[in-house]
Amino acid sequence: MEKTEKVGSYEFLAEPFHCDFNKRITMGHLGNHLLNAADFHAEARGFGMLYLSSISRSWVLSRLAVEMDETPRAYDRFTVETWVESAMRYFTSRNFAVVNAAGKPIGYGRSVWAMIDTETRQPVNILEVNDGALSGYVDAEKACPIAKSSRVKMSETAAFVREIATGYSDIDVNGHVNSIKYIEHVLDLFSLSFYETHRLRRFEIAYVVETRCGEQLRFYREETEPDTFCVRICKLPVGADEEIEVCRCQLVFEKS
Amino acid sequence: MEKTEKVGSYEFLAEPFHCDFNKRITMGHLGNHLLNAADFHAEARGFGMLYLSSISRSWVLSRLAVEMDETPRAYDRFTVETWVESAMRYFTSRNFAVVNAAGKPIGYGRSVWAMIDTETRQPVNILEVNDGALSGYVDAEKACPIAKSSRVKMSETAAFVREIATGYSDIDVNGHVNSIKYIEHVLDLFSLSFYETHRLRRFEIAYVVETRCGEQLRFYREETEPDTFCVRICKLPVGADEEIEVCRCQLVFEKS
Repeated sequence: MEKTEKVGSYEFLAEPFHCDFNKRITMGHLGNHLLNAADFHAEARGFGMLYLSSISRSWVLSRLAVEMDETPRAYDRFTVETWVESAMRYFTSRNFAVVNAAGKPIGYGRSVWAMIDTETRQPVNILEVNDGALSGYVDAEKACPIAKSSRVKMSETAAFVREIATGYSDIDVNGHVNSIKYIEHVLDLFSLSFYETHRLRRFEIAYVVETRCGEQLRFYREETEPDTFCVRICKLPVGADEEIEVCRCQLVFEKS
Repeated sequence: MEKTEKVGSYEFLAEPFHCDFNKRITMGHLGNHLLNAADFHAEARGFGMLYLSSISRSWVLSRLAVEMDETPRAYDRFTVETWVESAMRYFTSRNFAVVNAAGKPIGYGRSVWAMIDTETRQPVNILEVNDGALSGYVDAEKACPIAKSSRVKMSETAAFVREIATGYSDIDVNGHVNSIKYIEHVLDLFSLSFYETHRLRRFEIAYVVETRCGEQLRFYREETEPDTFCVRICKLPVGADEEIEVCRCQLVFEKS
């Protein structure tokens, strides 16, 4: 692949231990592949995580939405295409297409990213990085026919459904709860018998603040429409008595 | 690679979201790569999971031991070599070498597998599968310089340290708790501050019986020598009042 292509394509395998009891890759592992594809694409074009760490910068994932018509089965090979849809000073949108081995798109993703200075933790101007490397790769034409993420509306009366302690496996290379682990914890709020009759069609998450190891996570859930659930995750900082929202999700299921 | 080679080599990447706060791949994700390598090797030689499922057979992992001199860092590429060390009617041993990008072995693994008939759940003769396909690939010569798994000795007084409910993310394609997830849960028994000063050198697990979704897992831990811990995982079957051992682990840490 030439570095100058706007769209990057990366092949993945739905590994058997990444699949659920329906023999389909879980949304967490699929999300991880999308984020890997994003990083491979960015690295090859001069604005990946490895390069950024050398200049004390880092991408921060703000939103991720994934919508699948069909979820890859165990051992399926699939391709993740990814491209930058738009770029502003403080936010950039990156889209994804998941294409099966026959070349048919089976799902799409949308993501929004900010960039921070890893020393000050303050936002920095994305367009200034590496002489504006990113700007040259914007592809506003390629179709991504799923809804954009929107502010997930939840009432204050969403039911408290679980509290968990965060541990070693939750924590990423930056010392915060791993973006993918939140997805896994949210998926675990639904019973196996629910998954026997429902397929997760769309998953959307907005990250608000970071969680550190040892902080408790509290999950609140609300069914806002039939088979559509919103989940608010809050943390209780060590020693604090008031909780803070760390992220908010929406899950759209369909009867299977 | 020719199908007739006894040793298979598969390249992997230490993906950033599979790394811990020390920026090294976690033992769970590394173990998953070993199991993938095992399956790729087996499939290419006529005795992989996909082929076996077509004849109502399945591999069952009985033991896994991994010992690392050095653990791959985020973004490191590494190769997993795997080969069959021995094969008997009801058990086969498969070894692994983890080789860094410079070609230096940085760790090894050992595993023991049985095969079952997926309808009767009874053991079957490995040597009869696919006209004895496996026998032709035994390589008893290639070195695997780590100790074999041995029966982990624990006293009855090991401390009860945690109880967890199993959920959607724990369950694999067979409807049982995923072999890799046990590793993650065991790693989570140790605090982040412990990992700040200790490196996991060796992890060993013996699987005894399967756990189904909804069964509670109980963890018992004992420090049998300085920085060497044994963990017994028991389950409490739904409606039962006596627990059953499901697996047993040994973790050897070294000061880092």
